[in-house]
Amino acid sequence: MSNDILQQLTEILEARKNNAGAETSYVASLHQKGLNKILEKVGEECTETILAAKDAQASGDNTDLIYETADLWFHSLVMLSHLGTDADAVLKELARRFNVSGHDEKAARTQE
Amino acid sequence: MSNDILQQLTEILEARKNNAGAETSYVASLHQKGLNKILEKVGEECTETILAAKDAQASGDNTDLIYETADLWFHSLVMLSHLGTDADAVLKELARRFNVSGHDEKAARTQE
Amino acid sequence: MSNDILQQLTEILEARKNNAGAETSYVASLHQKGLNKILEKVGEECTETILAAKDAQASGDNTDLIYETADLWFHSLVMLSHLGTDADAVLKELARRFNVSGHDEKAARTQE
Amino acid sequence: MSNDILQQLTEILEARKNNAGAETSYVASLHQKGLNKILEKVGEECTETILAAKDAQASGDNTDLIYETADLWFHSLVMLSHLGTDADAVLKELARRFNVSGHDEKAARTQE
Repeated sequence: MSNDILQQLTEILEARKNNAGAETSYVASLHQKGLNKILEKVGEECTETILAAKDAQASGDNTDLIYETADLWFHSLVMLSHLGTDADAVLKELARRFNVSGHDEKAARTQE
Repeated sequence: MSNDILQQLTEILEARKNNAGAETSYVASLHQKGLNKILEKVGEECTETILAAKDAQASGDNTDLIYETADLWFHSLVMLSHLGTDADAVLKELARRFNVSGHDEKAARTQE
Repeated sequence: MSNDILQQLTEILEARKNNAGAETSYVASLHQKGLNKILEKVGEECTETILAAKDAQASGDNTDLIYETADLWFHSLVMLSHLGTDADAVLKELARRFNVSGHDEKAARTQE
Repeated sequence: MSNDILQQLTEILEARKNNAGAETSYVASLHQKGLNKILEKVGEECTETILAAKDAQASGDNTDLIYETADLWFHSLVMLSHLGTDADAVLKELARRFNVSGHDEKAARTQE
């Protein structure tokens, strides 16, 4: 499975941001409600992720944790889009810190 | 820029999780302190991301926002690793919701 | 204005916790949904408080901040009640730290 | 135990806000670092409260929960002080919602 899912999601989110049929789209409705509403969702999904992680540790079942983390990442993508940036900028920052790049995986593995 | 940075990060995080020289590694120290400490960091970085987003909207400068979102995603990767899952499971969940896949980007673009 | 509002609120919350007509009460419905739902509300109100504080600093208007902080404290009272404790235990902990007591206000003022 | 502990705490916090010997005071240092730092602490203590609540439910021991809730309330008092308001405004809002007052406890009890 390729990780350019995030790239595709970014493109989908941009398309929906400016969608003429915006009133039917959850993403467009978030942008219309504004940054505070988007950040409330980020905070809400973060709390749900934390609760799901505690429950996952107790139960051994990661299903809800994966679902809530997807919600958290998704709403953070909407936040980035709302402010005019995207996942690529965040991934570049992570790559910089860990000295990895998308073009040089082998090198990355030897940095450990 | 390729998006398999997340894949590489996942590999790096797994390597550091079990690192014999763990005492010098931030990632290893988080795992040793346990899930609560990791979740405290997730919550902390979420708050810092929300504050950075408010400040980015006021200033027009996304530098801190990108940095704090990287911190949030990074600590959520450590959380996933601690509980025995990874970014791939989260990306698959996102791909399922948006009907995209890493192998069929063209199709994804036409789903809009 | 007396501060034993918290004491009265605690009594009201306890009454509603065990209320026979529980299905119509917001407090009873939170208890029925369980701890995770209550904690989701605590996290949600915390995020809204943080956003309201940022906006209050920008606007100079504390109206929303006071409202959201009331929501945060209220849901933390429900959380305490759900787990069998109350505001009094929290206030005693605060009093202990700051070396104040409800019965000796004059002494407290001289501790500064 | 009287609940005017909050009133006393408010007075202590105001005194420390403007304290000439501010560099030695935790409260003064928070004010000097500014609103973002105070809100980071509010968010951090909220996450720790949520984790403590989950652990309290599992263990039956509320000690940490009470301690973390005290931290959360304390930092929200500092936030209110930083923005020029206080606990009294929040308690009045709660009293208004629940139709109670500090001067009429008996009436409050019959409102249930």
